[in-house]
Amino acid sequence: MNSTNPAWRRALEGALAQHAQIPFCRFVQVATIRLDGRPANRTLTFRFFLSGDRLLFTADTRTEKLKQIANNPWAEACWYFTETRSQFRLLGQLHVIGETDEQELVQARLRTWQERSDQARQSFTWPTPGKPLEQPEAFNKPMPQQPPENFALLVFTVEQVEILDLSCQPHRRTAYGLEDGVWDKENLNP
Amino acid sequence: MNSTNPAWRRALEGALAQHAQIPFCRFVQVATIRLDGRPANRTLTFRFFLSGDRLLFTADTRTEKLKQIANNPWAEACWYFTETRSQFRLLGQLHVIGETDEQELVQARLRTWQERSDQARQSFTWPTPGKPLEQPEAFNKPMPQQPPENFALLVFTVEQVEILDLSCQPHRRTAYGLEDGVWDKENLNP
Repeated sequence: MNSTNPAWRRALEGALAQHAQIPFCRFVQVATIRLDGRPANRTLTFRFFLSGDRLLFTADTRTEKLKQIANNPWAEACWYFTETRSQFRLLGQLHVIGETDEQELVQARLRTWQERSDQARQSFTWPTPGKPLEQPEAFNKPMPQQPPENFALLVFTVEQVEILDLSCQPHRRTAYGLEDGVWDKENLNP
Repeated sequence: MNSTNPAWRRALEGALAQHAQIPFCRFVQVATIRLDGRPANRTLTFRFFLSGDRLLFTADTRTEKLKQIANNPWAEACWYFTETRSQFRLLGQLHVIGETDEQELVQARLRTWQERSDQARQSFTWPTPGKPLEQPEAFNKPMPQQPPENFALLVFTVEQVEILDLSCQPHRRTAYGLEDGVWDKENLNP
């Protein structure tokens, strides 16, 4: 929307728009570092762009990934878009937002809660994710109407991007990096 | 095929079979650790299973990921299957196979080379991936008939697996871990 948005963001918005009819195009694999230094990788749902090169995800504060990013905030998200045959790799830092005064984030928390299905809301009442499976009764809590305390925003601030376009021969690889607050672009060998 | 294959492998083979009509179901995001300790994440094409809890990928030996795994072999692959709504996370070690006497791998190298399209074979003649873009002439090398030296097998030996099934409510999360050569299974909170 904003003409000052960096070129990689416009390209990613374009790819998402071209895949708008495919709901899973918003699922993206996000790698982080485990507490023992080994890599972790899981699928997150991209919610929407925030101002300032930031992408929004949401998370249950009780999950392992939140411990990982508290210890090491670096993450790389990797998207593969099936129709355009393009890959986006975004390297940056993930931060959990609890109580905040930033109005954009206060609104985003309400909006992402309201946009969730009842089933997705219910999951925040389940027992701690990743712990040994509890009895069925533990999954029968009343549905929360307001966003519960363990529903958090995960803000991903991007610092480096690589786009690989496999639709042409030879392929095209473009790198974007943030230098002193300005995005520069470099064409690389594919 | 082999009844001694671990349960997670049978589940993954089942998901792949259910998505056999979707070519991109074999694209999987694989996270590794960069030389500076930050995570990296990119899409690889899963070729096929090898014996002994091993998955086969191929790679150009000149790519950054090979430097990363020479430094730290740990990787986590993350698959999301759209039709079954299931996620597979596989943690293990990646190793590059150069010259080898293991007959299964000698055959696998020939087979994966033969199965590639001409376009995919051509890419191994292009200049070094990820370096500043070279002139168009650098992309006009003759097509190799035999697998070139920079065409390598990437063998992924799995040690830990987590399957998340989002098709039911509550979801189902199952963990598998290798203990003294035996796979054990644990049901976890989703």
